[in-house]
Formats: sequence, C-alpha cells, structure tokens
Amino acid sequence: MSDFIYGRWPVLETLRAGRRQFQQVLIAEGTEEKNIITDIINTAQAKGVEVRRVPRRIVDDLATNEGNHQGVVLRTAGYPYVELEDIFEVAKQRDEKPFILLLDLLKDPQNVGVLLRVADAVGVHGVIMQVKRSVAVTPAVVAASSGAVEHLRVSQVTNLVNTMKKLQEENVWLVGLDIGPNVKPLDKVDLDMSLGLVLGSEGEGLRRLVRETCDLLVTLPMRGSVESLNVATVGAVAVYAAWQARGWQGWKQPQAAE
Amino acid sequence: MSDFIYGRWPVLETLRAGRRQFQQVLIAEGTEEKNIITDIINTAQAKGVEVRRVPRRIVDDLATNEGNHQGVVLRTAGYPYVELEDIFEVAKQRDEKPFILLLDLLKDPQNVGVLLRVADAVGVHGVIMQVKRSVAVTPAVVAASSGAVEHLRVSQVTNLVNTMKKLQEENVWLVGLDIGPNVKPLDKVDLDMSLGLVLGSEGEGLRRLVRETCDLLVTLPMRGSVESLNVATVGAVAVYAAWQARGWQGWKQPQAAE
Repeated sequence: MSDFIYGRWPVLETLRAGRRQFQQVLIAEGTEEKNIITDIINTAQAKGVEVRRVPRRIVDDLATNEGNHQGVVLRTAGYPYVELEDIFEVAKQRDEKPFILLLDLLKDPQNVGVLLRVADAVGVHGVIMQVKRSVAVTPAVVAASSGAVEHLRVSQVTNLVNTMKKLQEENVWLVGLDIGPNVKPLDKVDLDMSLGLVLGSEGEGLRRLVRETCDLLVTLPMRGSVESLNVATVGAVAVYAAWQARGWQGWKQPQAAE
Repeated sequence: MSDFIYGRWPVLETLRAGRRQFQQVLIAEGTEEKNIITDIINTAQAKGVEVRRVPRRIVDDLATNEGNHQGVVLRTAGYPYVELEDIFEVAKQRDEKPFILLLDLLKDPQNVGVLLRVADAVGVHGVIMQVKRSVAVTPAVVAASSGAVEHLRVSQVTNLVNTMKKLQEENVWLVGLDIGPNVKPLDKVDLDMSLGLVLGSEGEGLRRLVRETCDLLVTLPMRGSVESLNVATVGAVAVYAAWQARGWQGWKQPQAAE
C-alpha cells in the first residue's frame, strides 16, 4: 500500500531523507514552479523519481487533509520503522548516552507530529510507540512534524511495557512525566544519563503498568488557573530539559558570516 | 458586538473567570447533560446567565469553527483587554519581579492560543501584543488556549516598539528569542529578573526594530535535520526556562491525600 505524503516541507524532507521507496511526485496544475516546489522537483529528479503535473482535484483526493497539501503529493512506500537495536546503534555511532522518547498510546496526529519535530530538533536517538491503540506515522503525522520524522528513528513495538523492561536491561533509566502528587519537578533529577523519557496519552496520562515500570516519575510544575497542558507542550519542555542537562551535546551554533 | 466562545472547556473557563459581560449560554439539542456540560449549566445559573437549548444548526452557525464547538456556545461581550499598568499591578500584588510575554505580530490563532495557555501555566503576569497586523484574542484563540486566556492579563498596544521602551523605563529587561548566529543559548543568561520575553512571528521571526530594541537576544539550540521549530514550541520552552530560573516561584505542588 502506498502512502501519500502531502505538503511542501513534508514532501521535500521525505525526498531529502531518502529512506523510503519513492513512486511519484504529483504537482497540482497551477502550482507555481518556484522556491520549495523547485527544490522538490530538483531533488526528485536527482533521485530518479518521476514528477507529474496533474489536475488539482487529483491532489485533493490523494491528500488526507485537503486544505494543507499546498499543491504537492508524494506517492511512496510506507514509513520505514526501525528496530530497537537501530536506535542504540545511532547513540553508539554518535558516541552518546542513549536518549529515547517513549509515547504511551498517543492518539492525536498533530500532537505526535509536533513531538517528533521537537525530538528531531534535540537529537533524540529514537522514538518508541506501540502498534495498537496508538497513532502510527501516517502522512498527517509527517505533515505535523514538517517532515522531521523522516530523519528520525521510530520503532513500533507490540507491547510498550515489555520494551521498557528490555531498555532497563540495557541500563536505560526510564523517566515518566506525570502529574501525581509528591512527584519531583523535572529539574531536580539528573537527566544526563542513558535516558528514556515516557509521555502519557492525551487526557489519560500514563497507563498504570507503564507508570509502575518507570524508574522515576517527574512532573512539570504548573501554577495557572487551568491546571493542564497539551502533551506536545509538556513533551517539548521535557526533551529540552533533558538536552540542556546534556549540555546541548552535538549543537553546532551558527556562526556569523565573515 | 458579541463574541461567541465555543467548546466546553473554553466556555466553562470563561464563565469561571467571570471577567466578561455574559449574555447567554446556548446548548445544542441532543447534547447530554453531564460532566462539563453540567458544570457549565451550574456555573451559568449561579451567575444569573440564561441557558437555552437550541437546534444544533444554530450552534453550528454561531461557532467560528464548526467541528469544535462540542455542542456549546457562550454569547458574551468581547475580550477584556487590560492596560500595561494592570500587568505591573499583578506582579506587585504577588510580590514578584515582572514576568511578561511580548508577541511580535503572531498570526496563527492556534499558536497564540497554545502560547497563552503556557503563559497561564507558568504564571506570566501579562501578555502584550500589537493591535494591527497581529491576531487578537478571538474565540478561536480562546478555544486554542482551552480557556486559559480568560484568567490571563492581555494588553493590546498600538506600537510594540514604543511599549518595549516603556517597559525598559520600568527596568524590565527585554530578552528576544532569535535564531541568528553567535547568540547565547537561553540557559546561559540570567532570566531571574524583571523580564519581558519577546517572540517573533511564524516564519518571519522578530522584526528588525523589535530585535534592535531588545536588551539581549537568546536562542534555543537545535541540532536536528529540520532546523526550525514552531513558535509555540519555542515559546513554551522559553517561558518554562524563565520560570525554572525563578525557582518555580508560586508553585503549589499537589500533595498526596492522607
């Protein structure tokens, strides 16, 4: 079955990452050939991928979300999930302590896409999610991540708790984000270690067994009148806190031109 | 002119905050009277606000975003913007150094809503945005903030740069989030001071004059393949970094029940 990746940045980043098998780029008639569209066409051609102009209604039909395809769709094989070992391999190649994000039954493609984009931004080595009862890396997720997920390692597992135990055997410290009482704020914990950050689902939070399997629970303080935050916001703050604890390892600060 | 606040949490929080003049709560026929809907009805009645059952199509017509009204709309006066002085007053009442968020021409209601929700969560004393070329606190923003903006002080100013200069006269230190070269990462700067955090617009970032008026520029490091993040994500991480620097001032950690 083919995936239809839609949107300019998502299509360009999917082509650039080059990890899927590509079939075709379809561009809606009337879409101006400039800027990112030109980059898409050049990148596709360099990789030997066919580019076709088609009536706009065909692009409308193929894109999951009609409003956001921006005139371009990429027909491609499904998302290239990896194994747990591949995630450890990335950490090893970079000579870094594992930095992994675990998502417990997240349902909303927008939230997951935003989280995957942040995970890419801070250099997370891999993301783990469960196959069932959880969103997969669909074109909507790719779009919400602005294509960042194409550069990231994502593993789909059958049972998240079993995988957590495997991670613990590899000396990965599992830290769950929770809102329970008497839980330490996340800056009072050393996050500069082999780390798996665990985020619970929208509304429900961490499942009981997932919570109990964590080595440690931390919380993100809140003092507002509305005592909840979107999971994508919580996750963004948490992965940044972890990367900051690692001293922004791997950051190449942009330099001023001479 | 009336505002039509839509969505269960947004309507409930608007009623709870009690800062607007309320006209009517309209509930779509067929909406079950339980949970939050019951809370809405009780809160409205306690405040003497009329509650009416109406055909669903009326609610569809009144809500800006048909898909998300969840069967309830609140007809009310517009958002109660405050003056700059009111923001300083909040800081004074809490006996805290001013903590202000400035938004430079943000356009997307979703981004602004998410930012206002986070601003409420960390106890920001007030948010400043420009009247023109910028989103206002519309029902879509209220919805995206889950109603949190109703508890927050927001000031609309005619010229953001002039307001920045006024803030500087009050010894507020203006720190702009930027992606330029040779800019310090935000944890290398002392954010525990009278602070105005300045966020640039989607795509464009800070305007030149706004950037030049800032006392200091900081950056959020990124190391991913996709070298950009949504402004709502950047803002969430930044306000949390500032609140952390203030030692989670005002945080009441939930306690376990005896």
